Amino acid sequence: MRNLKLTLAYDGTDFAGWQTQLDKRTVQETLEQAIAKLTGEVRVRANASGRTDAGVHAVGQVVNFYSNTQLTCDVLVRAINAHLPHDVSVFAAEDMPQVFDANHDAVRKLYRYVIHDGAVPSPFLRRYCCQSRHPLDASLMARAAESLKGRHDFHSFETDWPNRMSSVRTVTHLAVNRFGDYIWIDVEADGFLYNMVRAIAGTLINVGRGFWPLEKVQEILSAEDRTQAGPTASAQGLFLMRVTY
Amino acid sequence: MRNLKLTLAYDGTDFAGWQTQLDKRTVQETLEQAIAKLTGEVRVRANASGRTDAGVHAVGQVVNFYSNTQLTCDVLVRAINAHLPHDVSVFAAEDMPQVFDANHDAVRKLYRYVIHDGAVPSPFLRRYCCQSRHPLDASLMARAAESLKGRHDFHSFETDWPNRMSSVRTVTHLAVNRFGDYIWIDVEADGFLYNMVRAIAGTLINVGRGFWPLEKVQEILSAEDRTQAGPTASAQGLFLMRVTY
Repeated sequence: MRNLKLTLAYDGTDFAGWQTQLDKRTVQETLEQAIAKLTGEVRVRANASGRTDAGVHAVGQVVNFYSNTQLTCDVLVRAINAHLPHDVSVFAAEDMPQVFDANHDAVRKLYRYVIHDGAVPSPFLRRYCCQSRHPLDASLMARAAESLKGRHDFHSFETDWPNRMSSVRTVTHLAVNRFGDYIWIDVEADGFLYNMVRAIAGTLINVGRGFWPLEKVQEILSAEDRTQAGPTASAQGLFLMRVTY
Repeated sequence: MRNLKLTLAYDGTDFAGWQTQLDKRTVQETLEQAIAKLTGEVRVRANASGRTDAGVHAVGQVVNFYSNTQLTCDVLVRAINAHLPHDVSVFAAEDMPQVFDANHDAVRKLYRYVIHDGAVPSPFLRRYCCQSRHPLDASLMARAAESLKGRHDFHSFETDWPNRMSSVRTVTHLAVNRFGDYIWIDVEADGFLYNMVRAIAGTLINVGRGFWPLEKVQEILSAEDRTQAGPTASAQGLFLMRVTY
């Protein structure tokens, strides 16, 4: 049996997230059904690098699945896309060793959080960014973000989630950039806690609008207390960009 | 009474076009209702540079309307946007002389038609381009487009429409460009016939995929017969970019 790795993108707006749920439209079920229709295999199980929440987008989500299909990888990409709706696309397929696991073998993941702080949001980009009613100081946000780089207990930036062993994660890259009225926060880490990027975004937005001094971010981190951090920023600004193995 | 000019953008996907129709969601009714809520004026009539069809987008549609509102133009932009749904945005408001008519005074309009010819369309851009199953030769399309520049009878490129006096129009600018897997056709003219840009796009696509020689476009133009030209390309690739007064 082949172990196939897929790289896919999806517009999360009309999905109830990655993971299959009863009576909800999810990316996992949509993808599994497309593969099943194509291969005729009944029990297709797509194993993703991680679940994304309702409304969260992906540019480079990675999954693996087992199949006896004889199709070449190039044909597989085209054929799966022919069975997918317009808000999901597979960009690449690759044969992997039997042991490859898209979830457990992920070494790092890169997320991007996009904010618009202009007076008039574009109707074409509104689904893909979080709207800030206040103009933000992106360079202040970048400086405030410095204290989150490296290995820390990020308990202040996680929504409670059962069965977590540890909230210690290593942020390998964290940058805040602006282009025009758009600000994006890139966070790469060896793993992410539940709602971690959105809590970081909500916190940095509070700094960027002048509501908090930049030193506050270090205090929040040290407190290891979620109530100290900013709100969980809206899902529609979040993109899973890349998974590194 | 003030005569106000608005410049607006909309994502046409979920609209049945510009013009108000019974039981359908249209941009005109959506905008008029937003203004009416804001000003308390019952009979608001938004007069556009031209109607756009169902699914067609606008980056720079222009309308004018009469109102007794006391709000400054800057406040008006923000206030109207606060009453608009996420797929329409007003970018600018301006006081105009009483006689200004957004429809009759338009001197030129620029439309852009966007085509994607890559193997895998982006889930984020699929709503905003027409997908070609064949790779297209954009430079051949650009050469073929040359014969459409200038003043001609464009009857071969119009869908029948009652009460048309003449099909003669002047195309002041026509260009075909490519960036990556995206091709865009810009057409600026002193006026447009019904479905004219989409018929031009459908014709140039036939040339770009090698189905027709480039000389065919001149023959189609001379024939003054709609059945000679290519199909009307899909609405979702079309954008009204700019109206010049």
